[in-house]
Amino acid sequence: MKAIQKTKPESGFKVAELERPNYGPDDVLIKVRLAAICGTDLHITQWDEWSASRIHPPLIYGHEFCGDVEAVGHQVTHVKPGDYVSAEMHIPCETCYQCMTGKRHICQNVKIAGIDMDGCYAGYVVLPKNQVIKLPESLPPEYGACLDSLGNAVHAVSKGNVSGKSVLINGCGPVGLFSIAVAKALGATRIFASDMSEYRLNLAREAGCTEALKADKVNIPEYLHEVTQSRGVDVVLEMSGSPAGIRSGFKALAIGGTMILFGIPKSTIELDITTDIIFKEATVLGINGREIFQTWFLMLELLESGRLDIQKIITHRFPLDAFGEAIELVRSGQSGKVLLEP
Amino acid sequence: MKAIQKTKPESGFKVAELERPNYGPDDVLIKVRLAAICGTDLHITQWDEWSASRIHPPLIYGHEFCGDVEAVGHQVTHVKPGDYVSAEMHIPCETCYQCMTGKRHICQNVKIAGIDMDGCYAGYVVLPKNQVIKLPESLPPEYGACLDSLGNAVHAVSKGNVSGKSVLINGCGPVGLFSIAVAKALGATRIFASDMSEYRLNLAREAGCTEALKADKVNIPEYLHEVTQSRGVDVVLEMSGSPAGIRSGFKALAIGGTMILFGIPKSTIELDITTDIIFKEATVLGINGREIFQTWFLMLELLESGRLDIQKIITHRFPLDAFGEAIELVRSGQSGKVLLEP
Amino acid sequence: MKAIQKTKPESGFKVAELERPNYGPDDVLIKVRLAAICGTDLHITQWDEWSASRIHPPLIYGHEFCGDVEAVGHQVTHVKPGDYVSAEMHIPCETCYQCMTGKRHICQNVKIAGIDMDGCYAGYVVLPKNQVIKLPESLPPEYGACLDSLGNAVHAVSKGNVSGKSVLINGCGPVGLFSIAVAKALGATRIFASDMSEYRLNLAREAGCTEALKADKVNIPEYLHEVTQSRGVDVVLEMSGSPAGIRSGFKALAIGGTMILFGIPKSTIELDITTDIIFKEATVLGINGREIFQTWFLMLELLESGRLDIQKIITHRFPLDAFGEAIELVRSGQSGKVLLEP
Amino acid sequence: MKAIQKTKPESGFKVAELERPNYGPDDVLIKVRLAAICGTDLHITQWDEWSASRIHPPLIYGHEFCGDVEAVGHQVTHVKPGDYVSAEMHIPCETCYQCMTGKRHICQNVKIAGIDMDGCYAGYVVLPKNQVIKLPESLPPEYGACLDSLGNAVHAVSKGNVSGKSVLINGCGPVGLFSIAVAKALGATRIFASDMSEYRLNLAREAGCTEALKADKVNIPEYLHEVTQSRGVDVVLEMSGSPAGIRSGFKALAIGGTMILFGIPKSTIELDITTDIIFKEATVLGINGREIFQTWFLMLELLESGRLDIQKIITHRFPLDAFGEAIELVRSGQSGKVLLEP
Repeated sequence: MKAIQKTKPESGFKVAELERPNYGPDDVLIKVRLAAICGTDLHITQWDEWSASRIHPPLIYGHEFCGDVEAVGHQVTHVKPGDYVSAEMHIPCETCYQCMTGKRHICQNVKIAGIDMDGCYAGYVVLPKNQVIKLPESLPPEYGACLDSLGNAVHAVSKGNVSGKSVLINGCGPVGLFSIAVAKALGATRIFASDMSEYRLNLAREAGCTEALKADKVNIPEYLHEVTQSRGVDVVLEMSGSPAGIRSGFKALAIGGTMILFGIPKSTIELDITTDIIFKEATVLGINGREIFQTWFLMLELLESGRLDIQKIITHRFPLDAFGEAIELVRSGQSGKVLLEP
Repeated sequence: MKAIQKTKPESGFKVAELERPNYGPDDVLIKVRLAAICGTDLHITQWDEWSASRIHPPLIYGHEFCGDVEAVGHQVTHVKPGDYVSAEMHIPCETCYQCMTGKRHICQNVKIAGIDMDGCYAGYVVLPKNQVIKLPESLPPEYGACLDSLGNAVHAVSKGNVSGKSVLINGCGPVGLFSIAVAKALGATRIFASDMSEYRLNLAREAGCTEALKADKVNIPEYLHEVTQSRGVDVVLEMSGSPAGIRSGFKALAIGGTMILFGIPKSTIELDITTDIIFKEATVLGINGREIFQTWFLMLELLESGRLDIQKIITHRFPLDAFGEAIELVRSGQSGKVLLEP
Repeated sequence: MKAIQKTKPESGFKVAELERPNYGPDDVLIKVRLAAICGTDLHITQWDEWSASRIHPPLIYGHEFCGDVEAVGHQVTHVKPGDYVSAEMHIPCETCYQCMTGKRHICQNVKIAGIDMDGCYAGYVVLPKNQVIKLPESLPPEYGACLDSLGNAVHAVSKGNVSGKSVLINGCGPVGLFSIAVAKALGATRIFASDMSEYRLNLAREAGCTEALKADKVNIPEYLHEVTQSRGVDVVLEMSGSPAGIRSGFKALAIGGTMILFGIPKSTIELDITTDIIFKEATVLGINGREIFQTWFLMLELLESGRLDIQKIITHRFPLDAFGEAIELVRSGQSGKVLLEP
Repeated sequence: MKAIQKTKPESGFKVAELERPNYGPDDVLIKVRLAAICGTDLHITQWDEWSASRIHPPLIYGHEFCGDVEAVGHQVTHVKPGDYVSAEMHIPCETCYQCMTGKRHICQNVKIAGIDMDGCYAGYVVLPKNQVIKLPESLPPEYGACLDSLGNAVHAVSKGNVSGKSVLINGCGPVGLFSIAVAKALGATRIFASDMSEYRLNLAREAGCTEALKADKVNIPEYLHEVTQSRGVDVVLEMSGSPAGIRSGFKALAIGGTMILFGIPKSTIELDITTDIIFKEATVLGINGREIFQTWFLMLELLESGRLDIQKIITHRFPLDAFGEAIELVRSGQSGKVLLEP
């Protein structure tokens, strides 16, 4: 099978020709139908500091996909060959305190397929049975391929309790764009989106935001206080990781509001916690991954009921062996979600 | 001024010609622009057991309206003559435990304007300043007149946390119909509505339900388990008060689901709490009135943002002195919300 | 090994001499150190309607115990021979909606060891690895033997959010008594206990209640409104299952209060939901089993920190083959928690 | 009457002899029985940057006290001369969004008595009727004088949901010490207290902490992970305002834990939000003032039930005109809560 592989601890990747992987008694072998590129894959390709410290080549990367079960180990009963599936690629240890108390998504010993073990940029992928989730046949594979990052958005937005509230979404990369669509589906009343890129702001409009704000042209906290009778927005979804964006988000937040932190800043940041958290009695919530499988069921309910529409956020599709071209496009910022077809 | 008045402790009403009421230093005198009929007004007109025990004629009834401030007492500062307003007609005592701890809507000494003191079926109404809330000029008076019962729906649905969930709305009277529209606005994924009347089920469809179910034709718990892969609906909003409806709602509810009780049964009812609450770990929440003014602000946000559309639920409009005709229509069940114009 | 076995579908039990059970690759074989009697075991012994419909003899019953791992299947890694353990006897299916969304304790396909398969009234018991939880060596086996029913109390009381609140505990059987101790540990301010039996009310006092009320001598709702300045108690923990007790509990509950339903009435009951739930805006929560393993970790934290003391609630101890005498004592009501030593 | 007054915009204070203040129709005149010193009073005395920017002399300061109603305006009905009372000194505007939605304690137009208008370091103080709360006669005036800062602790700890959890309290000034006692009363299982001062750590022990940690001797995050089986503490109550303390608190916090921010750092601080909030899925809550009057009722319930004991935290008592000596003692750090007697 073809696979995108990091073969050496350096920048770049290889389109490799590999054997179909073996599977154990508790594993599921899945034929990949469609995969998707995440920002992390860009970091791995570029071999940044984080990648160098975490990843041990050779590694097939990629951690967003859908596919069809090809074969199952003899202890697997909940899926069978032919089933249309996706998978949670964060593999919890099942025995730590978090895992034993319903918080497997923040397992302290998590392994991630596509980072710590072989992933899905390949013809086939092998995963432990507990990770695999059946998809409804009616779900378009374009959607099925994106459920990992869409799940980030669903998890972040649902923790923000946006129903009936005004929302600022800071940063319109793919997860930010998904968050706009999810916030709309979950009942946010007004959705303000902010980014520096006109291309992405256009996608934000397509995704359903009420207003798209160019972060270098508009004083966002001022503007949002103006349109909310000095109240500020009820919820800020921070998807940019930019220190300036985070600080601006805090300023835009209403007294008593909720700040959802998902975007990852490169280093420590300077915060005015007195004004922005304490006096404001803000609620600040960190978001990591997706709840296993609460987020998945919620996401499928939103998609299947037709409430959530992400079609216009998926902008490009490449064959797997055009990965170089695809990752270049992702790097340019001139794309929404980008798919890969093995 | 003209007013609808209960003059004697018996069935019926009088279209009275009365003096404009006086107001005190903490009061607001409001010229009624548009009022609305609530089921309670039907009970008062018919003089049922509850009315006979609670109401002391003479009484101007009516407790849903919007209007324009005509004059204010000298201690009133937050509204002024000319302001477009509505009012919370549940008047809390401000000094009981509930009032002092942010729960004024369940004040143990509440008085209700239109029941315990003169209400709004009149040219003018006088209310204590703390009850009066300004409305945005852009809000159509047809909507402004309905905010009391729309507020019941907003309070009930928001306590149900319907965002991302499947919902059954039991009973499609005006508050049930409003609840459909509110559930849609707040992000419910699938909204099943149930009633015995074809007329009301048609309104339910107009209000935006996913499916309207005739309660005497469909086995609702069975049907809902069927369309939810045996899961049941996540939230039931009980707006009918019918014992059979309440029991059927509990059977339709998912394990771990939430039952919102708003509709008032005429007497005690027989419940299978073992199966329907304990083994299911159901959450059952009683709903009374509207939160003062949390519900109002949420409601205005939903209306002003365009998320909530109630236009088709308001079906009729009469001059105030055609109250007899209007109340007959309400009694017939062949109406949605009915307005009265002084 | 010796075991308490239901051999025929009729009243009674047999002290049987059986082979040590076999175990599979995912199983744990545990030598029972100490077991405890639950009310359910009384029903099984007496062979009531519920038992007759659910249980298929031959069956070793008993579902509360602690013990020492004797041997493990080759796929078991988180415990090893010699470990001091207890086990969650509700065995979830792991694949239904509830199991996949962090609610395994309300699995719709649950099997219970000691009811649907062999339990712990024996020298040895075999359980699937996911059910077994390690105990700290410092935990007295008397406590380790009670964790199932203590877990019911911890789950019920913790859902009631009793911290800083006044509480009524309706019914002082073992779970009710445990609930008193747990409510005290979790920060309830005043704990009123109610029962008909003077013996049990004495145990309630030992368990730490503020006041023990004889339900046939005191008008409990009246009394509790009197001592709470007409407010009522903030939380009612209904552990009796008595219809009169349930109704009395609702009357004692504060406006806006929380009713926890755990005790199982024999049939449907008549409730005044208008006054007791709707107008009061009560929160009513059904409680089933224990959260797996949230409740267990909370329980161990409470015990290990010394906050929770249940010593005086454990009143008797019998050798396993004196089961007949032990169950007679339980039937008489003149006991707290009763232990069995294999 | 005697009063502690800031007469000029500079360091220092005056023990003034002033007329008893007048009161309006909605005001309550209270004879101060006992007052208490807060850290803010130290800032005002020293005339730091914040004081200089906010305070307009002449001003009687002091905002913690209890007393007896001397006289009431003619529109005051809920208290009468002779009543034993305290008061919420944060005076909300009653008309902003927060005030109208049950969040008066974070009113955006709040005025504080003792900062923005005359306070309680005097023989008499005048306050608007809505601020005044009756105290039970059985409450010792030493406790009644501290309810403002005790209320900070009750608000902070109750938002942390400490029941059944391990807690770190960072900083053992008076509010930190109160928080220890409150955490114990509300059901925290293990309470670790941290400070640099041996004097304060001794008070922390008296207040009921499980363990008192000297912050410059112990690596607190390491130590707490050690004693919690690598889990970290479930809740951190940050009462120090020290940047190093805040960072250390975040490191000590469990995955999925709750950080309560109350202590106010002097300026912006550097935070590693990626590790400490996002990956950990921490909940961070800012705390301001006390809920009006939810916190007050909870506090009185805790004190009256005997669950909360603060006696050993109140260490000194001075006559009002020895304010200079008292404030010097507060500055030295060799005190718990310090009282002033007019």
